[in-house]
Amino acid sequence: MSELSKNKIKWIRSLHQKKHRDELGLFLVEGEKMVQEALDYFDTYVVCIAHTSEFSCSTFTGEKYSVSTKELEQISTQKNPNKVVAVLRQFTAPNDSIDSSLVLAIDGVQDPGNFGTILRIADWFGISRIVCSKNTVENYNPKVVQASMGAIFRVQTTYVDLVEWLTQQTVPIYGALLEGENIYEQSELPAGILILGNEGNGISPEIIAQITHPISIPRFGLSESLNVSVATGILVSEFIRRNPPIPVK
Amino acid sequence: MSELSKNKIKWIRSLHQKKHRDELGLFLVEGEKMVQEALDYFDTYVVCIAHTSEFSCSTFTGEKYSVSTKELEQISTQKNPNKVVAVLRQFTAPNDSIDSSLVLAIDGVQDPGNFGTILRIADWFGISRIVCSKNTVENYNPKVVQASMGAIFRVQTTYVDLVEWLTQQTVPIYGALLEGENIYEQSELPAGILILGNEGNGISPEIIAQITHPISIPRFGLSESLNVSVATGILVSEFIRRNPPIPVK
Repeated sequence: MSELSKNKIKWIRSLHQKKHRDELGLFLVEGEKMVQEALDYFDTYVVCIAHTSEFSCSTFTGEKYSVSTKELEQISTQKNPNKVVAVLRQFTAPNDSIDSSLVLAIDGVQDPGNFGTILRIADWFGISRIVCSKNTVENYNPKVVQASMGAIFRVQTTYVDLVEWLTQQTVPIYGALLEGENIYEQSELPAGILILGNEGNGISPEIIAQITHPISIPRFGLSESLNVSVATGILVSEFIRRNPPIPVK
Repeated sequence: MSELSKNKIKWIRSLHQKKHRDELGLFLVEGEKMVQEALDYFDTYVVCIAHTSEFSCSTFTGEKYSVSTKELEQISTQKNPNKVVAVLRQFTAPNDSIDSSLVLAIDGVQDPGNFGTILRIADWFGISRIVCSKNTVENYNPKVVQASMGAIFRVQTTYVDLVEWLTQQTVPIYGALLEGENIYEQSELPAGILILGNEGNGISPEIIAQITHPISIPRFGLSESLNVSVATGILVSEFIRRNPPIPVK
């Protein structure tokens, strides 16, 4: 257990920025619960851990640093950091978990809280794969990592040219559109790809052109739209209840 | 159209705090779209509007102030303020809109983004009434107002002693609990009250004691929980699809 040098502080702080995360192939995981999940699921990816005396990681045999509350504030991206910051190598989550055969395709979601929440929904419903357009928020963004509540370790996320990728698929391609078919009235929803779009602009026109099954959640009140992560939750739930995998107890 | 005095700036800034909102019975609405909704739905509640030259509200006959971008930044609660800040009197939204006969009861939701999103879900599905425990985040919190996307003007929100209120009700009381009955397997879900709990701790024990129908969203993956607003969306959707009001086109 060593102390944190000024250079190490600078190095960790550089990972607050996407540019440096990309360059170094590293990212940050913060807080007691999330770092514990990282150690449980991905310990070989953990490069180092900086923690206060309140956090214990005795089983971790890699680089460890003991830090003061003040130092923790310096290296954390959070207003109220929680005991520990870990540096991890970027990875591809395995695509071998429970598989509902539904794949989510995300077209340009920008808000890290929304994207992290979408990862969490996928993780809850046993969806193991999310394919994103290149203008979707980065999965290693600290707020995405946080909002995912550990889902980032279990759901495979890839960034692709979404139009090109969709043209190669042969399964049904569902898209959430305001003028789509009422999802409640679909007697069958065979598994396929479900596309969700940007918060303000929805799915982009060139992606809409790839949709084979436009669907929608009917509206009964006056709100103009639903939050994209809420819409994802409702639509995924509609798919899963028709094709349920085996629940986890 | 006048200029904004230093005292007026101080008065508007005081409304960033709940204490002063409570004392004065006022709150802030920000941004082009939300202020327009306020003028459309609640113009008699608008006390004054401070806006840059980019925003036009010629039909509003009350107090108006022309502000610079710098002044707007001073009075706004947002990092990137959008053209206009309005001061409104607090109000009780009417309870006479499309009524699904489902009432949401919120027990201690803390995050303003989550609570605003729950208001937006209610507004989408035509639920006109939300009853909250007193430790639930304030509906006039600027981040709640923002995340509600106008729902705050249409959904009636009241704060009560939730245990006492629930004991007076005779309809089914549903509660979202991890160990509840699988919602997908309920052939009927007669309208009633649906309780959602705090982000970290769920529904409090004394409120759990009031639940007549514990329900849950089945889990198929490894995530420990769903975000509370996502869970609200999925559960409300399950109620509404069984008892649909007339959709709004």
